Amino acid sequence: MGKNAIVGQSGGPTSVINASLAGVYQSCKARGAQVVYGMCNGVAGLLEKRVVDLSAQLHDHLDVELLKRTPSSFLGSCRFKLPAIEEDRSVYEKLFRILEELDIGYFFYIGGNDSMDTIGKLADYGKLVGSDIRFMGVPKTIDNDLMVTDHTPGYGSAAKYIGVIMKEIIRDATVYGTKYVTIVEIMGRNAGWLTAAAALARSEDCEGVDMICLPEVPFDVDHFVEKVAAMQEKKPSVVIAVSEGIKLADGRYVCELADDVHAVDAFGHKTLTGTARFLANTCARQLDTKTRCIELSTLQRCAGHLTSRTDVTEAYQVGGAAAKAAFEGHTGEMVAIKRVSNAPYQSTTELHPISEVANLEKKVPLEWINESHTDMMPEFLEYARPLIQAELTPIYVDGLPCHVRMK
Amino acid sequence: MGKNAIVGQSGGPTSVINASLAGVYQSCKARGAQVVYGMCNGVAGLLEKRVVDLSAQLHDHLDVELLKRTPSSFLGSCRFKLPAIEEDRSVYEKLFRILEELDIGYFFYIGGNDSMDTIGKLADYGKLVGSDIRFMGVPKTIDNDLMVTDHTPGYGSAAKYIGVIMKEIIRDATVYGTKYVTIVEIMGRNAGWLTAAAALARSEDCEGVDMICLPEVPFDVDHFVEKVAAMQEKKPSVVIAVSEGIKLADGRYVCELADDVHAVDAFGHKTLTGTARFLANTCARQLDTKTRCIELSTLQRCAGHLTSRTDVTEAYQVGGAAAKAAFEGHTGEMVAIKRVSNAPYQSTTELHPISEVANLEKKVPLEWINESHTDMMPEFLEYARPLIQAELTPIYVDGLPCHVRMK
Repeated sequence: MGKNAIVGQSGGPTSVINASLAGVYQSCKARGAQVVYGMCNGVAGLLEKRVVDLSAQLHDHLDVELLKRTPSSFLGSCRFKLPAIEEDRSVYEKLFRILEELDIGYFFYIGGNDSMDTIGKLADYGKLVGSDIRFMGVPKTIDNDLMVTDHTPGYGSAAKYIGVIMKEIIRDATVYGTKYVTIVEIMGRNAGWLTAAAALARSEDCEGVDMICLPEVPFDVDHFVEKVAAMQEKKPSVVIAVSEGIKLADGRYVCELADDVHAVDAFGHKTLTGTARFLANTCARQLDTKTRCIELSTLQRCAGHLTSRTDVTEAYQVGGAAAKAAFEGHTGEMVAIKRVSNAPYQSTTELHPISEVANLEKKVPLEWINESHTDMMPEFLEYARPLIQAELTPIYVDGLPCHVRMK
Repeated sequence: MGKNAIVGQSGGPTSVINASLAGVYQSCKARGAQVVYGMCNGVAGLLEKRVVDLSAQLHDHLDVELLKRTPSSFLGSCRFKLPAIEEDRSVYEKLFRILEELDIGYFFYIGGNDSMDTIGKLADYGKLVGSDIRFMGVPKTIDNDLMVTDHTPGYGSAAKYIGVIMKEIIRDATVYGTKYVTIVEIMGRNAGWLTAAAALARSEDCEGVDMICLPEVPFDVDHFVEKVAAMQEKKPSVVIAVSEGIKLADGRYVCELADDVHAVDAFGHKTLTGTARFLANTCARQLDTKTRCIELSTLQRCAGHLTSRTDVTEAYQVGGAAAKAAFEGHTGEMVAIKRVSNAPYQSTTELHPISEVANLEKKVPLEWINESHTDMMPEFLEYARPLIQAELTPIYVDGLPCHVRMK
């Protein structure tokens, strides 16, 4: 009799995180897992033994197809950081007792840096107590900031969404032929991968965005206003993509310059909102122009109606590859995507020790940003363009995309 | 030799306004118009004689297909109000001189209430001076606030966009299982048609939004906070759709309660932004909950990647019907959509004198809003559901939807 498997989702949602869930589920089933459990709300829910039998949730192949097209974490998510093993073993004892009760042999966690920290600690504790449970990490984040993997599942779809929306915003912003500064705020606290994706909008039928501001390089408000003024002398409507996380040379976030009260979240992270609004207000005050700010907000991570088929396929594959690795005896590792070639685009998966990933952050290489810090170099476009190729059409029912949700 | 035709686009863009342009163009050509001109930036551009020959812009049938899939006004737009004829005849004299130079027999204007005002005045002046140019209005507005027409082209696609996005936001907002108030701000200064469309999200696979606040009924901030608090006792994550134009009983806009400086646009209209932000901040202060505000902003009117095929088809039809009417001798009228039946949905077009449309505003009937002013009645859903049916898939090139733009 095969052991059971369990899979959880953690951190911020993406529009393809459920494709990885489908990959883990189908691959575990094919390899003989008796039951594939889903953790409700990740490790936080597992500690309360809130689990579901995925076979009771996914009745047929159509359900699995719908799952691949359902944005945001099907199982629910959490932001839960395990303590260091030497600090508090009780939470580990509890978790392993629950895993034993469920007869788990294979444990999968789909998430970003923090989630990989969880996999690392669980694998370490498993080794310590001689457990034979295999712990595998499945990468996921729209932020694309994980080490060792060429890119993260979730990024391609978010990048495609941003490229499409920027094209549409540029069309909208230019209809009157009047002076207009449109500033679009895009997610990314320390890494500018998502904001950089705005560069994808430039194409035969689109002039592209006029400026891209990433958190990798210091931001200067006065220079920014000067640049906008210079641009508006040549063309009245200027569209700019800024990362929510752009910072001044002294390390302060630009959004901190606004007068608004700024909330601090449960983890002490400042809420980075208002960057575009602050810059739009600043331009409106200093320049003779109308301004508008647009925050893409959560839309960029939950737009299941507009995914990259390349991304969906790879998200499914890393799930399957994690199952394969676990059943072959691997533990404490993460599946990474390795780019084989660019033209034609080909990729494969490989395994990396969790220690190479957990709690680390991959930023946009400085040489992919142009000298004046306003645009991306061709190297970035060569990197990102393959990731947004092709579509996975939603299954529309009564005018809206159909999703599958927890029964 | 047939006379020439000219067509312009005016007011805010929609994602199907170019389908109406395609309808006018192809129908005029089929009826023997020599040249079909496009006004650049509407009447404002026509006054500077900025026109293009549409045949030089649209080379083949594929270009016309792309035009139907291109959001935002292909010809550019304007916000230009003609003076009363008795106040200033010179602008009319200039316009008619230009129309004569271009040998125009048929004049089409695609737009909302203000644009219909333009058509009405031009037709009146034409009658006054014995011109045989026919002036026809083609309805367009995401706001759905035009009289006599069952609905306006542009509304169906915006409503579909809002329905889809609300479903996706609801999925995103519920993943953590923690207390969260998400407030989504939707366009609509005086009419709540767009915000009402958030009700479409409720379906077999979606619990729907928890509250809908329209400008048709007075808004009370304290009651609102009480309702949110009551809802959160039953479910932690609450998603609310609010119109940017909600007002207090004393007539002040809710967004005016915020401390921010509020801009006034060139027409003296207050900029209605910050409603959701103000309400989210108020909830955060008064309730023990995290909050988030999302402004759909221009995305709801330029999302060409997510249109309703019903809407695109009708937008094309009203363009064609306007050409037919003009060639048959009609002038000073607007094409309206008449609903023939709901199940199956069928519609046709009819003509109405401009005086029944221009400068008037159609609001959501109060009997379509529930008694507690928090949700839509089934009558609204029966009305709106047919308008979001079916899709027109973009033609994707290199990962992004392909558009056609002015050469």
